[in-house]
Amino acid sequence: MAANTAISMDRLKASIPSNNLVIAADDPVLESDFAKEMIRQMRAIDSYGTYDKWSANRILDPFILTKERKQEIPIVGDPDEEVMARVKVFYNAIASMIEKECNLMAVPLINLTHEGFGRALISVGKLIVMDRTLRDIHRFGFPSLAKMKTEADKILSVAMELIGKHSEVAGL
Amino acid sequence: MAANTAISMDRLKASIPSNNLVIAADDPVLESDFAKEMIRQMRAIDSYGTYDKWSANRILDPFILTKERKQEIPIVGDPDEEVMARVKVFYNAIASMIEKECNLMAVPLINLTHEGFGRALISVGKLIVMDRTLRDIHRFGFPSLAKMKTEADKILSVAMELIGKHSEVAGL
Repeated sequence: MAANTAISMDRLKASIPSNNLVIAADDPVLESDFAKEMIRQMRAIDSYGTYDKWSANRILDPFILTKERKQEIPIVGDPDEEVMARVKVFYNAIASMIEKECNLMAVPLINLTHEGFGRALISVGKLIVMDRTLRDIHRFGFPSLAKMKTEADKILSVAMELIGKHSEVAGL
Repeated sequence: MAANTAISMDRLKASIPSNNLVIAADDPVLESDFAKEMIRQMRAIDSYGTYDKWSANRILDPFILTKERKQEIPIVGDPDEEVMARVKVFYNAIASMIEKECNLMAVPLINLTHEGFGRALISVGKLIVMDRTLRDIHRFGFPSLAKMKTEADKILSVAMELIGKHSEVAGL
């Protein structure tokens, strides 16, 4: 599984020419904790160290689906391993941010079928702080880096509110 | 996926001769709500209706791993689709029992890797009422029907206690 992911990440890298990036190298969002955590998570699955010399904007680029990029993806399709890995990275990064904010372990659980459906869940103690039905995984992506961060921030703030309200269950 | 499971369930049926059952046809546990729910769940994945004429003890027989049966399974191995289907049936049946007892939706989420590890989780509202790490899935089974029911009853009673204590979170 780890080896497979590594191989497919290589294919992914090959498929994105470095001169066609949609995230600017000086995008201020790249300095946010969220973007840094995303890069950390991406490096964690990069078994061969291919990302070692890559800039942050290049590593996060495949998460951005501009209108043009989206148009190139068929409406119906099976997700490949690359996109499934990115879905996991996104929710793992959010779980990690939750953990940092509340000092309690946040555990992500992502269940994807080969048909592109699934469920993503993050738990803290016995409290479910995020629970999402996933569909059309093969078209997973965000219009821009800023919008990806906004989405993550929203999930984070809902999670922190739930943990505050139900701290007893979160501490179980 | 459904088709694959159906095919492999056929293989499963073929592999268990009806004259080699370890559950007696008149085992009183077969009359319990739990056993009835297990049979209902097994029939739900039986796309070709092969079980239609099967007795309850024959349908549940593959869940029982006597010492002799266990000895025939290698210590290390990958789970096949049949045993993965049985793991799901077991936890689905428990979720269904929880649902009946508390009148709230109980959602099972079973995440199994091909290496035989995984996590089984049942949620009610935003409350996790069961959370288990699974390992050695290829050796999933119970010493006897009574012991399988005892195990399910234990999970059920812990879940009901949690729901009673944290009814607000369970109702979210």
